[in-house]
Amino acid sequence: MEKRKVYMDYAATTPMKKEVLDAMMPYYTELFGNASSIHCFGREVKSALETAREEVAKLINANTSEIYFTAGGTEADNWAIKGYAFANKERGNHIITTKIEHHAVLHTCEYLEKYHGFEVTYLDVDKDGIVDLKQLRESIKDTTILISVMFANNEIGTIQPIKEIAQIAKEKGIAFHTDAVQAVGNVKVDVKELDIDLMAMSSHKIYGPKGVGALYVKKGIKLHPLVHGGAQEKKRRAGTENIAGIVGFGKAAQIARINLDNHIEKLTSLREKLINGVLDKIPYTRLNGHRTNRLPGNANFSFEFIEGEALLLSLDMLGIAGSSGSACTSGSLDPSHVLMAIGLSHEIAHGSLRLSLGDMNTEEDVDYVLDNLPKIVERLRMMSPLYEKVTKGGN
Amino acid sequence: MEKRKVYMDYAATTPMKKEVLDAMMPYYTELFGNASSIHCFGREVKSALETAREEVAKLINANTSEIYFTAGGTEADNWAIKGYAFANKERGNHIITTKIEHHAVLHTCEYLEKYHGFEVTYLDVDKDGIVDLKQLRESIKDTTILISVMFANNEIGTIQPIKEIAQIAKEKGIAFHTDAVQAVGNVKVDVKELDIDLMAMSSHKIYGPKGVGALYVKKGIKLHPLVHGGAQEKKRRAGTENIAGIVGFGKAAQIARINLDNHIEKLTSLREKLINGVLDKIPYTRLNGHRTNRLPGNANFSFEFIEGEALLLSLDMLGIAGSSGSACTSGSLDPSHVLMAIGLSHEIAHGSLRLSLGDMNTEEDVDYVLDNLPKIVERLRMMSPLYEKVTKGGN
Repeated sequence: MEKRKVYMDYAATTPMKKEVLDAMMPYYTELFGNASSIHCFGREVKSALETAREEVAKLINANTSEIYFTAGGTEADNWAIKGYAFANKERGNHIITTKIEHHAVLHTCEYLEKYHGFEVTYLDVDKDGIVDLKQLRESIKDTTILISVMFANNEIGTIQPIKEIAQIAKEKGIAFHTDAVQAVGNVKVDVKELDIDLMAMSSHKIYGPKGVGALYVKKGIKLHPLVHGGAQEKKRRAGTENIAGIVGFGKAAQIARINLDNHIEKLTSLREKLINGVLDKIPYTRLNGHRTNRLPGNANFSFEFIEGEALLLSLDMLGIAGSSGSACTSGSLDPSHVLMAIGLSHEIAHGSLRLSLGDMNTEEDVDYVLDNLPKIVERLRMMSPLYEKVTKGGN
Repeated sequence: MEKRKVYMDYAATTPMKKEVLDAMMPYYTELFGNASSIHCFGREVKSALETAREEVAKLINANTSEIYFTAGGTEADNWAIKGYAFANKERGNHIITTKIEHHAVLHTCEYLEKYHGFEVTYLDVDKDGIVDLKQLRESIKDTTILISVMFANNEIGTIQPIKEIAQIAKEKGIAFHTDAVQAVGNVKVDVKELDIDLMAMSSHKIYGPKGVGALYVKKGIKLHPLVHGGAQEKKRRAGTENIAGIVGFGKAAQIARINLDNHIEKLTSLREKLINGVLDKIPYTRLNGHRTNRLPGNANFSFEFIEGEALLLSLDMLGIAGSSGSACTSGSLDPSHVLMAIGLSHEIAHGSLRLSLGDMNTEEDVDYVLDNLPKIVERLRMMSPLYEKVTKGGN
């Protein structure tokens, strides 16, 4: 098989769709006004802003007025948690989250604990990465004001029982935030049906531009701004609007909504082929995350006896782009906190590979990986004294 | 004179330069990787990020490692003030700023006062909008940890004695932050010569894209992150980097640096023509801000007996885009806090117009304004009973 470029790191970021770029271009050229200006240069862009807001709202079945644009998913998570915590601290100082959250949530919670007098409970997850609802119930105190559980995990793809968690929060009068950066555009997300109070989204994970995101804030939720200043976003998030970026996000949201069923079907099929092929062809391999209840495009494997970084570099030389852990922490020597939380040993966790599929992937891409990955893994294992021992012992 | 489109609201936002857009485009198409990814898709964009950082650093004579990208000037101001305040609160809880800051600074300070136990002194300014250094010295307490004074005012253009302020801060061991969103790219800004500790910048004010900015953080300055999460920006500002936006900002910074002298000369000349023409042709008019020590492109007038909003709309119909106050607060009925602080009455402040010039303006644009503005002002004044009284009394 000829060498090809196979991008399987869609969970880190996605290429922008051509329609998205086309929609953005006028706002980088003639329509350059400031949306807050009252002259014609400003008015022209103000309506584009509201159209984009409507599209993002539609994708998650929110009211348009409940969507607030941010500079990305991370800012949205920070805003939801800090903004809610600070605005409601007279009611209590306890927050519940999980051990497998994205660092945008984890480090925010740790910061509130360390410097602002909050107390945080970090829930365990089971071997598939699913939160224990019983433990969640037992963790709730009189001082609990916020529960933050991610919709779907960025590393292992596991989808949480969001409806049940939201229900528990509601029963106790606690606000519920979910980091849905990986879920929105990849699975059906309906904030009304699920009864979500706060939800973070990102544009560049759904084929839109980087540097844009949104926070869904259910009507009536009390929240301090994270970014103070001008009157933008109904005085809740200051700063001149990134119009081109927001228009691109709106277009990406529209496309994601229209294509959602096909998108899920296509990616699920490619993922199954990939997972089955890898597990079939490569011994001493485990799939991380829930076998079926996972993001359509996510596959995460641990290969015994090898180093993930070496594997990534070998794949890279063949044109295959994957990831160990998440892009946000790559370069770090610590094993993934997510893989630790699902019970993997340091050793096994270090030999992990995330392949995340997206719209531009084909059957041929998967074939290319299934053709090359087993050889690379075998070659790397040959250098491991441990592997030698196991295989000799086994024969 | 034929009707034309005259944009004189460059202080609100600037059109992007073609070279800037050209520099950005590859990062919206083939070079779409996540800068934190270790595969080739990621590496390609990582170096672009660092080149942009170098360009922004050069524009203000900082070290490259002292530049941190943000989603804009407002975020940079919030980060500088909240980040410094929270990280240094054991040393004191007192902040000094001025009454004429942008709301990104003012509302941030008010928030820290109201909810986080800080105390803030808001310094007066004189009739030209200049801070009183004596009052600054007298306001310093043992608990003062931060002084924040804007470089140049966004409404009236007045430039502050930054070097002297930084010197006072330094003598007392207090950190000095300046909101330089309007100054950078329009006047010479040298953070080393001026001895600045923290400085906020914005891309879209210097012909770059919206949604990007930077905070200059002098080496050694202790600062909490505003946005926690991934390890981006040396773990000080989390979130997947907005590569295209940052590359655009870098290009805009490069152009601004190379063209600075010409830019200042051209805008100063147009501004003088505009100011002299308006003051000459329209009676009962005052120039707001310092007569000479002001931003090259800034003109701000108060016309007695008229309403600023009516004036803006009339100008808009003739294709002239100006502003009353700043774009960030337009739509508000309150008179500008800046005009109040320099001693204007509500009535006079309401009849104000900011015309801010930029690179694409020409002598003909200024002629067009000088041809039309006096007629509009006269027509609007004819509707004012007060004006009738004055002119009848005067005749």
